[in-house]
Amino acid sequence: MQRIVDFVLELDKLKAVTRKNRPLGLARYENSAEHSWQIALLAMSLQPYADPGIDIERVVGMLLVHDIGEIDTGDTNVYVEDGQAERQAAERAAAVRIFALLPPAQAETMLALWQEFDAAATPEARFAHAADRAMPVLLNLANDGQSWRENGIAHARVLRRVGPPIRAGCPALWYYLEARLEEARLRGWFGADADA
Amino acid sequence: MQRIVDFVLELDKLKAVTRKNRPLGLARYENSAEHSWQIALLAMSLQPYADPGIDIERVVGMLLVHDIGEIDTGDTNVYVEDGQAERQAAERAAAVRIFALLPPAQAETMLALWQEFDAAATPEARFAHAADRAMPVLLNLANDGQSWRENGIAHARVLRRVGPPIRAGCPALWYYLEARLEEARLRGWFGADADA
Repeated sequence: MQRIVDFVLELDKLKAVTRKNRPLGLARYENSAEHSWQIALLAMSLQPYADPGIDIERVVGMLLVHDIGEIDTGDTNVYVEDGQAERQAAERAAAVRIFALLPPAQAETMLALWQEFDAAATPEARFAHAADRAMPVLLNLANDGQSWRENGIAHARVLRRVGPPIRAGCPALWYYLEARLEEARLRGWFGADADA
Repeated sequence: MQRIVDFVLELDKLKAVTRKNRPLGLARYENSAEHSWQIALLAMSLQPYADPGIDIERVVGMLLVHDIGEIDTGDTNVYVEDGQAERQAAERAAAVRIFALLPPAQAETMLALWQEFDAAATPEARFAHAADRAMPVLLNLANDGQSWRENGIAHARVLRRVGPPIRAGCPALWYYLEARLEEARLRGWFGADADA
């Protein structure tokens, strides 16, 4: 029991890892713990858009654990493209460390979920990635492009970075977002980064 | 798709509903969204202590949705005992309102999870309640009794309010906590509320 307690208290640190979006109506930045909760519910809500064979419970499990490595590394914005391999290696090492706090059976189960998400090779992992990538877009669309404006992110860059994983995991969600993103572009909610 | 988006953006408001515990090492109070995430992972970690027939995925689903009614009502501390029936009715009305944002199939599934937790009659719901009640105790035990001290909560009151639901849902967790609570009492981490 003590190992479970040590693990769940270690999880508390994810409440201090901040992301680039601000919750609607709040001045502070969102943290990775509440983000993980929200995308688990997004995935549950999107179930009718999942292929019939998809195990939505495994999707939810993946989304609940997928950011745990950030306890050691911090969040990295999806638009930061340098040093990606190093960050991924650091997050993998962190996941191994943190799940090893648990008794072996639970450590193995949760690390397997984390690794399945990380590899993005199964239909469940791809569906999970679609929910994870879509959520900040949905928040920005509801918040006048807040994190795109603050970070000078161009429309073309959003399409390039989040389009393929969302389309691969949940095509209907991408068709919806693509149209909303075009409306946002016409409203001037994006930056004009040279890299776009 | 728009109804799913409306629902998930409504969920954003739970990030603004604060509880009485402070995350370890942070000055701010915890919110109900990140709390829901943490107890879902606590329940997954406690699976070996669940009766063999328990569907842990349903437990996780219940924990992810159980606080959604607080979007309209705010969090109520477990030690506030007045007006409980009115608050429960208000939370039920809120849950009905919020899940109705979803298309009917998902609304029905999620409201059923919420109601199952609320009724606390199935083994899954009792296991979920044990995780929900245990988490603030675990945070207080790791934080010098922070919310007990700040709110003058007595040891006897903690035992009376959280003991029965935790023991009913996950006896091994309660045996662990009972011993830790006694150590905390000897350290003087509780208040002396007359009502205890």
